[in-house]
Amino acid sequence: MDLLKGYLMNKKNAIRIVALGANAAGLRAAARAKRLLPNAAVTVIDRGKFISYGACGMPYLVSGDIETADKLRETAYGVIRDPDFFRKAKGLEVVVQTEAERIDREARRVVCKSLLTGEIQEYPYDKLILATGATPIVPHGIPRNSPRISTFKILEDAIVLRKALQSGQIKKVGLVGAGPIGCELAEAFTAMWGAKAILFDAAPTILPAMLDPEMARAVETYMKDEGVEIHTNCPVLGVVESKEGVTVKTPKGDFEVDHVIIAIGVKPDSTLAADCGLKIGKTGGIVVDERMTTSDPNIFAAGDCVELKHLVSGRPIILPLGSLANREGRVIGSNLGGGDERFGPVVGSAAVKVFDMNVSSTGLTTKAAEETGFDLGVAWGSFADRADYYPGFENLHLKLLYDRKTTKLLGLQGYSKGEVVKRVDVFASLLRHGGKLEDLLDTEFAYAPPFAPAVDPLYSIACTARNELLEGIQSLPPDADLGDRFIVDVRRTKEASDRPLPEKGTKNLPFEEFRTICDQVPKDKDVVCICSKGVRSSEAARILKEKGCADVKYVGGGSLMKLAQKAR
Amino acid sequence: MDLLKGYLMNKKNAIRIVALGANAAGLRAAARAKRLLPNAAVTVIDRGKFISYGACGMPYLVSGDIETADKLRETAYGVIRDPDFFRKAKGLEVVVQTEAERIDREARRVVCKSLLTGEIQEYPYDKLILATGATPIVPHGIPRNSPRISTFKILEDAIVLRKALQSGQIKKVGLVGAGPIGCELAEAFTAMWGAKAILFDAAPTILPAMLDPEMARAVETYMKDEGVEIHTNCPVLGVVESKEGVTVKTPKGDFEVDHVIIAIGVKPDSTLAADCGLKIGKTGGIVVDERMTTSDPNIFAAGDCVELKHLVSGRPIILPLGSLANREGRVIGSNLGGGDERFGPVVGSAAVKVFDMNVSSTGLTTKAAEETGFDLGVAWGSFADRADYYPGFENLHLKLLYDRKTTKLLGLQGYSKGEVVKRVDVFASLLRHGGKLEDLLDTEFAYAPPFAPAVDPLYSIACTARNELLEGIQSLPPDADLGDRFIVDVRRTKEASDRPLPEKGTKNLPFEEFRTICDQVPKDKDVVCICSKGVRSSEAARILKEKGCADVKYVGGGSLMKLAQKAR
Repeated sequence: MDLLKGYLMNKKNAIRIVALGANAAGLRAAARAKRLLPNAAVTVIDRGKFISYGACGMPYLVSGDIETADKLRETAYGVIRDPDFFRKAKGLEVVVQTEAERIDREARRVVCKSLLTGEIQEYPYDKLILATGATPIVPHGIPRNSPRISTFKILEDAIVLRKALQSGQIKKVGLVGAGPIGCELAEAFTAMWGAKAILFDAAPTILPAMLDPEMARAVETYMKDEGVEIHTNCPVLGVVESKEGVTVKTPKGDFEVDHVIIAIGVKPDSTLAADCGLKIGKTGGIVVDERMTTSDPNIFAAGDCVELKHLVSGRPIILPLGSLANREGRVIGSNLGGGDERFGPVVGSAAVKVFDMNVSSTGLTTKAAEETGFDLGVAWGSFADRADYYPGFENLHLKLLYDRKTTKLLGLQGYSKGEVVKRVDVFASLLRHGGKLEDLLDTEFAYAPPFAPAVDPLYSIACTARNELLEGIQSLPPDADLGDRFIVDVRRTKEASDRPLPEKGTKNLPFEEFRTICDQVPKDKDVVCICSKGVRSSEAARILKEKGCADVKYVGGGSLMKLAQKAR
Repeated sequence: MDLLKGYLMNKKNAIRIVALGANAAGLRAAARAKRLLPNAAVTVIDRGKFISYGACGMPYLVSGDIETADKLRETAYGVIRDPDFFRKAKGLEVVVQTEAERIDREARRVVCKSLLTGEIQEYPYDKLILATGATPIVPHGIPRNSPRISTFKILEDAIVLRKALQSGQIKKVGLVGAGPIGCELAEAFTAMWGAKAILFDAAPTILPAMLDPEMARAVETYMKDEGVEIHTNCPVLGVVESKEGVTVKTPKGDFEVDHVIIAIGVKPDSTLAADCGLKIGKTGGIVVDERMTTSDPNIFAAGDCVELKHLVSGRPIILPLGSLANREGRVIGSNLGGGDERFGPVVGSAAVKVFDMNVSSTGLTTKAAEETGFDLGVAWGSFADRADYYPGFENLHLKLLYDRKTTKLLGLQGYSKGEVVKRVDVFASLLRHGGKLEDLLDTEFAYAPPFAPAVDPLYSIACTARNELLEGIQSLPPDADLGDRFIVDVRRTKEASDRPLPEKGTKNLPFEEFRTICDQVPKDKDVVCICSKGVRSSEAARILKEKGCADVKYVGGGSLMKLAQKAR
């Protein structure tokens, strides 16, 4: 088999491999290389004390969902992943608390310093793997060595916070940055410990890299209902220590808290690479090819320190995710072992759980799609995540982005207390294959009422988009101002009175009789139909168009998505 | 836009469309056609009293999870889907309790008889849609009009059973056929009502169309633990009514029960089609092309009555699933409206929930793959469905089938108390694109600890398969007899003693120290390694091979899948 050729040739090679960074990317690459090259001497060097831990689980250590920090660095069978484990089980030498200071590419060696003894040691290599990770971004002017102001990047950060919560030292926390980590921490502080969390972001809405504003606002509203204080459009101007705590200074005023966590994002830790002359991208990440080789053929790079390419936009991006780091590491290990594996452009799938709300997205947001120059089409929809007669089903709210010219899929965003994340995965697998709206209609879903409705939400939202193209009836976004339109509420009368719209003077014409009563809608007015999910209203709009209404639209995602915009 | 051309041309067409069958396929086709052709006269005829109900939800009506039969025929907003609803909301004429007796293709009319009055009525059509469904198969010699012996196909069947359970008339039920419906009913009778369910199947294991034997046996063991009595390899020879109940006669003896349900499968209801000379396939289903047109260009067919083509095997199959029926119906409706939509070959995804166990599969089983002539490669694996440090994660057990020559994906089977179904969906979307093992490595999963491990099970099982190809180390199936091999148990000592293997004389050499102790394994024996999930043991096997062991294998899926084969 061709697949095998390169690998077998390399079996005898006793080369020296050095990896910098002993977390997902570095260790995965090192272990894979050792597996394929049993005679290689593989050394992994890390500046930290703890290695190979589940950094994405740190918010759950803070929250108390996970009992001890060790849980994050244990194998599934309960063995701590320390240097001893990697030596005895994986055949790797792991050197911790040691900082790589300089890479000498000509001599092929890394100059390191022990953080414990200050001793300098040189590690020669034949092949070098850079998995140096990323560093939290801390804005200028924020004190860096205060015990009351921290970032959230390494295991020690989580351990300290957990202790402080347990001993009651933090009753009020300021979270700067409303990305996934900020949101997860907001839950962590609130749900179990009853601390007050105040979330700040300079962007107009939370989770700006994942969600468009009207999707984000629904999640924001939900978080506020759960007790989180959220200030968007609110850049933090400074953080100042006081005797009793910390003051967060913003254009909206000063906020007094016990502790501040800066979680506005990370930047690739590419200094070592830059210093030795490797090519660095505009994003600040190390440039690699599809084989994860840097501009030096003997040096590979993976994980949070590299620059990736977005499959849909074609643009360079930074995507510091453990799931990608693992895959990139394996590609390097395989290639060191004689394979020829590729790590393709990424679609940027993301997921975050905030209290009981599951939020997920993939592909491009509206902003990214517009910047890339697509002829953006959008569809919203609310659906049941399982059969709607099956007990415990939850509503699922989706936004689909596609190119109107080619019907090519661009992105998907969703939130639900039920199943949304794996639907994003299905969508992402279509994105990877350049999928179109029609491919969503062709997708086969394993169906039984406890898992899905007979017609899956992904299928339905593709129908919504195609109907819009086909019938020329546009939906309005769930956050649209309907004020100047004649509003036809096609929900049942009881639905309409139970969850009334904020607008005055709506006309209730229930869909179940719509064809017999739709003449009550004036033909000369700008009309908008609304129902609970966007299905009935889209049909009603089409019927009105047939009957001669000049301008008729409907509210995408229905009253469920509209009313989710604002707190009740 | 090209997409629009055909549709717009047809807007004015006042054609007559008749559909036979008022469930998923027929109504979806009719409603879609009416939407695109507002001037069409669309009539839907059904022999039943109830129409448009969620037949797949019937087991949950029996179980009591769903309170009333009406729930299955209500819209999400609580309106009963009866002829009145379809007229006032959808513009369709629905005629119920009326049987189509004959299709006159030359005159383009359907001759029908009212089941209430016996009156004959003719319905002329320009286009006809056959959505006549399927009929339960009842073996010869089983009485057909006994109140104690029933099939499970129409809503009335479920209503009667629910009443009988509620009034305590059924304390013991015989279920003939261990497919999805038989298994769902076994739960329905047991879980809420405490009735005794006895499940019979002539096949060696349950769910034979979905699962290979060693996967099925794990589910079977679980069901037995939940109190279901299961007899596989046990064809039912006859069902005989007695004064007090019913006797099920089998080679294993007679079983006395209060009620028997025959659920061995369905056959396409294609008699009308055959009688008027339409082409019928070997499977008994109506032959249609990709546009869902029958051999008569004016007649379309969809739903359980049609023959489909399997994408992976290329063979004709019958796949009576509501999810497909809906999609097929929409294709017909769109094509009647001037579109050119296709319904492609199917991959046969299926899902069933049995008590708290979720079971799902897609593509070919081993039997089907071998019949088709693939060079079958197999990988098993046990994984955590979420991050294994995240509270509430569940084990997920997968079997992957692929072609060794091309690494093309062939099928996936899984069971878990956690998330398995949507992973099958992701896999199915790759199957549809002719995906290979490498495509699973390229798949991007939205990652956060509450939803998935950093390395998704689908990625990991592809690694398992590729490692096997690459390293030439074969796994044994979880149900393999290890008797004649030297068994190396690489689990931790406590794991091994807590869940001991049935085999005697195993050698426990924990993986976390394996490289330092593996010399204890004799090089001249046939060795098999085992761990809990199949990951450690595969690595251990490779290390032993490096050290010179001549014949070394490992147990796929580990002790978790091995011990799941037999009741504790």
